[in-house]
Amino acid sequence: MSGLVALRDVTLRDGLQDERPIPTDAKLAIFDALVGAGVRDLEITSFVRSDRVPALADAEQVVAATAGAEGVTRWGLVLNRRGAERALAAGLDHLQFVLSISEQHNLRNAGRTVDESFAELRALRSIAADATLEVTLATAFGCPYAGAVAPDSVDEAVERALDCDVDGITLADTIGTGAPSEVRRVVAQAVARAGGVPVGAHLHDTRGLGLANALAALEAGARRLDAALGGLGGCPFAPGASGNVAIEDLAHALECEGRSTSLDVAGLVEAARAACRAVGRDVESHVGRAGPRFTQI
Amino acid sequence: MSGLVALRDVTLRDGLQDERPIPTDAKLAIFDALVGAGVRDLEITSFVRSDRVPALADAEQVVAATAGAEGVTRWGLVLNRRGAERALAAGLDHLQFVLSISEQHNLRNAGRTVDESFAELRALRSIAADATLEVTLATAFGCPYAGAVAPDSVDEAVERALDCDVDGITLADTIGTGAPSEVRRVVAQAVARAGGVPVGAHLHDTRGLGLANALAALEAGARRLDAALGGLGGCPFAPGASGNVAIEDLAHALECEGRSTSLDVAGLVEAARAACRAVGRDVESHVGRAGPRFTQI
Repeated sequence: MSGLVALRDVTLRDGLQDERPIPTDAKLAIFDALVGAGVRDLEITSFVRSDRVPALADAEQVVAATAGAEGVTRWGLVLNRRGAERALAAGLDHLQFVLSISEQHNLRNAGRTVDESFAELRALRSIAADATLEVTLATAFGCPYAGAVAPDSVDEAVERALDCDVDGITLADTIGTGAPSEVRRVVAQAVARAGGVPVGAHLHDTRGLGLANALAALEAGARRLDAALGGLGGCPFAPGASGNVAIEDLAHALECEGRSTSLDVAGLVEAARAACRAVGRDVESHVGRAGPRFTQI
Repeated sequence: MSGLVALRDVTLRDGLQDERPIPTDAKLAIFDALVGAGVRDLEITSFVRSDRVPALADAEQVVAATAGAEGVTRWGLVLNRRGAERALAAGLDHLQFVLSISEQHNLRNAGRTVDESFAELRALRSIAADATLEVTLATAFGCPYAGAVAPDSVDEAVERALDCDVDGITLADTIGTGAPSEVRRVVAQAVARAGGVPVGAHLHDTRGLGLANALAALEAGARRLDAALGGLGGCPFAPGASGNVAIEDLAHALECEGRSTSLDVAGLVEAARAACRAVGRDVESHVGRAGPRFTQI
């Protein structure tokens, strides 16, 4: 493996969604710190019901206030047409639709069946014809309610997503239950199935395998990895979920592996400290606590 | 990869050496919990100067009190002949000699040059002719003082160790600076050099790559992995070192990968909680905090 690895930061969405709301200005400071550290691809909010995810109630304001960032791709997460309409009206042209492969998780997270979510995705494709529309297939490596998820279910979901003409597919280890061999196998299978449509991975570090899984996903052909500052994150409708892979850990690990991310690890550590301070949490990342290797003395 | 993976617990040595001393009885409770969870290979103490490592001043008592454990291999760490004589007199027949590949680290950790440590190892082999004598090559993947360590230096140290007729070689990532590709390469090189002499790995999770490195070491032919309850550990003479790979994380990860360790992950989590309570620390392991996968609801 060599060459540039694309990392997408999801701090402002996944990292904050389950936290007590912080001021919009604090989010903008995190956005600026991320961009300052070289991040050019960010999921900045969700267009979901503010009574369900109050921490992201300022979606429109965040989009408006970050509109001037040059060379930066901003993603908005949506679960349905209503969300997509809001995102498009706010001025976003990169939409990340989420549905869960596990029926039970989708019912809780999106409030509809998997079939209904695919129908929604198809409808959304037509109203967002000019936008980049990608899908995250959640619980691709396990569900908090159903347990293990069969690779065949993932394969079927990938096929259905392609059938909806998505521009990209992200396989999400929503509750951090994946292990490297499985990640390698399932991502490779999706890459083969997806043809030219890029496949990414969204991994959580719940059981310490986040970085191992990230490297396995890249080996298997994943073209983008999601991550969040300080290991923030979780899913309000996925009990047991804990933080995303920390972007500073991931950028550092890739650097150690001789891969480039164009990101400034020290800048990410600073940003992680600020983001964790803003939500009142300790920095949970390894590099955030210990520093990059060979710099400790 | 398949089959049984040998894990050696080092909680009672590496996990405790840098902590305030705890009573011998508390150590015996940890020993019993580990054995109860299926652990059969344990580094139980160091025979070093008690003014330098006061937490392990009761080495003889720990050896005497654990002598009745059936089917259990107990290792004592030694840095010199004096330590080896004490270990043998206490009744141990498995000695783990440590020397650092990095001159600067060896001077601080062992109080002598690398050449002097190899001379000591040779002398030790003759006084411990009937014992199992293995060597840990510390700083094999990086040194807190010298930075990167060249693979050629590791190769040379492996050759010198074999020349001292050791029964096994462990490559230690003393400060958690290794990354998977490097671990794979350096372990494979040592395995090739060592012929029939088994090579193990001792890894720290300082930058989140502990499990990825462990899997890489196994792929490369490592025959045994060291780990400690709750991610305890560090090195008093390696600033920046933080915890060992947590044995419960490692056993869980291997189980997820379809490898067997014969260890009871839930029992290890219980033992980790008790051990961390004994030293007044939070459990730092992933599985100790989140639980094994698919059990959280």
